[in-house]
Amino acid sequence: MTAYVRDGSEIYRRSFAIIRAEADLSGLDPALARAVVRMIHACGMVDLTRDVAASSGFAAATVAALAGGAPILCDTAMVASGITRSRLPAANDVVCTLSDPDVPRLAAELGTTRTAAALELWRDRLDGAVVVIGNAPTALFRLLELIEEGAGRPAAVVGVPVGFVGAAESKIELARHPAALEHIVVHGRRGGSAIAAAAVNALASERE
Amino acid sequence: MTAYVRDGSEIYRRSFAIIRAEADLSGLDPALARAVVRMIHACGMVDLTRDVAASSGFAAATVAALAGGAPILCDTAMVASGITRSRLPAANDVVCTLSDPDVPRLAAELGTTRTAAALELWRDRLDGAVVVIGNAPTALFRLLELIEEGAGRPAAVVGVPVGFVGAAESKIELARHPAALEHIVVHGRRGGSAIAAAAVNALASERE
Repeated sequence: MTAYVRDGSEIYRRSFAIIRAEADLSGLDPALARAVVRMIHACGMVDLTRDVAASSGFAAATVAALAGGAPILCDTAMVASGITRSRLPAANDVVCTLSDPDVPRLAAELGTTRTAAALELWRDRLDGAVVVIGNAPTALFRLLELIEEGAGRPAAVVGVPVGFVGAAESKIELARHPAALEHIVVHGRRGGSAIAAAAVNALASERE
Repeated sequence: MTAYVRDGSEIYRRSFAIIRAEADLSGLDPALARAVVRMIHACGMVDLTRDVAASSGFAAATVAALAGGAPILCDTAMVASGITRSRLPAANDVVCTLSDPDVPRLAAELGTTRTAAALELWRDRLDGAVVVIGNAPTALFRLLELIEEGAGRPAAVVGVPVGFVGAAESKIELARHPAALEHIVVHGRRGGSAIAAAAVNALASERE
C-alpha cells in the first residue's frame, strides 16, 4: 500500500497551495479568490476559473449577510449537507424546503419541477438571504421570477446549477438580470452542490 | 425572462439524450453505460468517460447487492444525501458514520482524518456492502487497509474521491488492488459526492 498523507490540516494546506500555484486568480479580490479556491477544491479542476464570473460586490455582500445572521436558502439537501456548520459566523439557518410535504402539490399546481416549487416556501425569508442553487436550473429561473414578482431581494446568489438542459441559460439569465443581484456563477454546464456549498463555506470564515 | 423547460421528466429525457449523443459509451455494457450517463449528468461533463474505469463485474455486482438488501456505506453526508431513496430496490440502509460522536477520538487515536476514522464504525457491515467514497482520498486508502486486515469484502466500491492530494493515487490503488474488488473510479483529480451518488442511483433502478 502506498504511503499517504493522513493529517487533515496538512491535506488542506497542500491542496490550497497547489490550487493557488496552478489556477489563474489574477484580478480577484482576496475574498473572492478564497471562494474560487474552495470551489476548485470541491471539483478538482483548476480551469474552473475560466467559467467563474461574479458581480463586483458578491464576496463582500455574502460575508456581510452571513455575519448579520442571514439564512442560507439551498435548492437541494446535498447543498445543505455541504455547508460546514462550524464555519458559519452567526449559527445561520441552513434551509432546504424540497422535502416539505406541500412541495409535490405545489409543483403540480405551478406546472414546474419540485425543486422550483420548493422556492414558494422561501417567500418569507428571501429578502436579505444568501441563496445557493447547486443543482436545478429550474430553481434558478424560478428564483428570478420570484424576485421579479417582488417577493424580496436576496443579499447574494450562488448560482451554479449543473447539467445539459437550462443550466447554462439560467446562469446567463442571473448574470445579466436587470435586478443586478450580487451573484457568482460558473458559466456553462459545470456546477453542482459541492461547488455551490464551497463558495459559501469559503466566505463564511477567513480560515482556510 | 427566457422561456425554459419546467417538466422534470422532459428535462431528464432531453439531458440523457444529449449525453448519449455526445459521450463515448462504446464498449460499455448497458448497466455500466447507465451508470456513466448518470455520473456525467451529475457533473455536466461528457468527457468524464476519458477517466472512468470499472472492473468488468462492477455493474452486475452492484445491481445484485442492492437487490439483495446490501447497505450503502458513504464517506460523507453529501453522498448519503445524494442517494435517491425512492430508487433503492430493497429500502437499503444508507449509512454515514462521519458525525458519530466517537469519530473525533478515533481520528486522534489512529492519527488520521475524521473521514478515514469513521470507517472503523463500518467493520460489522462492510462484508457484502456497497461502499461509496465521494469525497476523501484518506477514506478510500483506509478502506483498502481495512480489507487487507480482513475486516470484510464489500460487494462493490464506488471510488470517486476528488481533489489535489491523494485523490488520483487512491483511485489507482483501488483499481489495481490485489483483492480485485469490483469497482468504478474516475481517475485523476475529478470526482465528488454527486458523481458518486449518481453511480449508485443509476444501478439502483433501471428507470432513467
